[in-house]
Amino acid sequence: MSQSLQTLAESLLTGKRRALAKAITLVESSRTEDTARAQELLNIILPQTGKARRIGITGVPGVGKSTFIEAFGLMLIEQGLKVAVLAIDPSSERTGGSILGDKTRMLELSRSEAAFIRPSPAGKTLGGVARRTRETMLLCEAAGFDVVLVETVGVGQSETAVAAMVDFFLVLALAGAGDELQGMKRGIMELADAIAINKAEEPYLQAAERAAQQIRNALHFSAPKYDDWQVPVLLCSALTQSGLAEIWTMIQQFASERPERIRGLRRSQSVRWMQETVSDGLRRLVEKNEELRALRKDLEQQVFAEELPPTLAAMRFLEAFERRT
Amino acid sequence: MSQSLQTLAESLLTGKRRALAKAITLVESSRTEDTARAQELLNIILPQTGKARRIGITGVPGVGKSTFIEAFGLMLIEQGLKVAVLAIDPSSERTGGSILGDKTRMLELSRSEAAFIRPSPAGKTLGGVARRTRETMLLCEAAGFDVVLVETVGVGQSETAVAAMVDFFLVLALAGAGDELQGMKRGIMELADAIAINKAEEPYLQAAERAAQQIRNALHFSAPKYDDWQVPVLLCSALTQSGLAEIWTMIQQFASERPERIRGLRRSQSVRWMQETVSDGLRRLVEKNEELRALRKDLEQQVFAEELPPTLAAMRFLEAFERRT
Repeated sequence: MSQSLQTLAESLLTGKRRALAKAITLVESSRTEDTARAQELLNIILPQTGKARRIGITGVPGVGKSTFIEAFGLMLIEQGLKVAVLAIDPSSERTGGSILGDKTRMLELSRSEAAFIRPSPAGKTLGGVARRTRETMLLCEAAGFDVVLVETVGVGQSETAVAAMVDFFLVLALAGAGDELQGMKRGIMELADAIAINKAEEPYLQAAERAAQQIRNALHFSAPKYDDWQVPVLLCSALTQSGLAEIWTMIQQFASERPERIRGLRRSQSVRWMQETVSDGLRRLVEKNEELRALRKDLEQQVFAEELPPTLAAMRFLEAFERRT
Repeated sequence: MSQSLQTLAESLLTGKRRALAKAITLVESSRTEDTARAQELLNIILPQTGKARRIGITGVPGVGKSTFIEAFGLMLIEQGLKVAVLAIDPSSERTGGSILGDKTRMLELSRSEAAFIRPSPAGKTLGGVARRTRETMLLCEAAGFDVVLVETVGVGQSETAVAAMVDFFLVLALAGAGDELQGMKRGIMELADAIAINKAEEPYLQAAERAAQQIRNALHFSAPKYDDWQVPVLLCSALTQSGLAEIWTMIQQFASERPERIRGLRRSQSVRWMQETVSDGLRRLVEKNEELRALRKDLEQQVFAEELPPTLAAMRFLEAFERRT
């Protein structure tokens, strides 16, 4: 068993696509026997991960994400880099297919030997989908990819999930007809490390510049992620490919100007990921106990109906929990 | 024991200040024997809570919070209402005294029979301080207060804690010399149900109006708390008392225009409070076990050092936990 995992790992590390696909299938599997094997594989290849630049990209449908990712990806490939494109789309379980990571929308990129495009994994919960994508990212790094783009479509909390696994979170937006900003979901500003106004080509250039200024003013009021990084607002056109090189240069600058920045970020992301997984697991363990689950529901109902003070309800639950453990 | 609690409750419900002070001391106590009695008391008076308007007020030092609260409080009292002023200042443990809830800064208000001012409770953690303030608020309601103002100074996460226990969260700010907004901590915008620019009296009136417009534009990009409430940006002057009546009218409108709004908010606040208290309690129970604590620290260290994949680390911890319970 472990022998075949070792073989798979070695094959993966030489960059073989077949091995990568096999490994991803293992990581995406929900079968209990595969879960342990997937973690064992990740443990084996862990020292060979972390070598790519991890970039999250979001924007509502219509902002031109696919066009942007294709143009951006091809530009990186032209520079000799290998690019993986992953996606988080929690709705894919429901719709039976994701609009993200759709190769037909990035045809030229999908045909390149140096590119690897994977649609969003399915999953019952966002947490499950995020775990699969995150671990697929590690596999891609071990397989030698230099840049991993993680795309999300902005449904629910998927942006937060992507921001928690990447080095840099890029938000795409559009200038609307009246200069107002379009395509940027409210509340996304706080996650952004940069905002790019797409389709900034004539005759929309002036509108794009005005929208950019508007956003720069608004950024003044949002909580900054870093004390030493001011979120740039750039213009670009995926169609004419202008502004893309500047975006890549900016991302590289972000990564290199403070050596500890990315390292510290990744450490805290990993630790937080572990803590969240433990919290989720504890919650599930507690829920497995029929009595405790019924008690919790009953207490919550009493709190909801304002028949029991919240702290007292919590205390009763914790006492019952302690008695059973 | 329960007899004296019943007596205390009855005295509290008639509005006796002595009883209120005694009850608050009980709720603020960290002694184990007092914890259970405090919860019992809250359980007794719970049906008599919920009758006040709960308003959170924040703003950095210098914005004029004390002057505002005094002027606002006196205005409410003039309308025949009883007003309680509480505070959350997590630094009070360290400094040995809070700058909030300081009666010397609200002298006239503190002298009114219809007012009750209480400094921030001490506490080792923000959670502990928040619990005490929240439960003191319930006691004030049972004692017949019509409005409870909960003040916070904007240190760490104290605004989030206050926003989670009030009906309405008011943020105070100032117009700076160059029209830029001052005194509004970045990231606070998302918590606000209204923003009031204080000291909007000549010769600062125009600057205040420009700052207000700036904030209205920025609000466009922040995630709204409600689909059906647009966050107003108002001007006021605690000194000349202008704009205060408008603020009170607005808060009453917020409460009355959708009957379910406050009720639904309070229910979800109570349930979330219970869930957080349970999560904190579970975490503490797990930490009490020496072996598990040591294991968790060790696993986290390995994840931090990038020697172990986060999911695998979490799985190992959960397996160990299950074995011990």
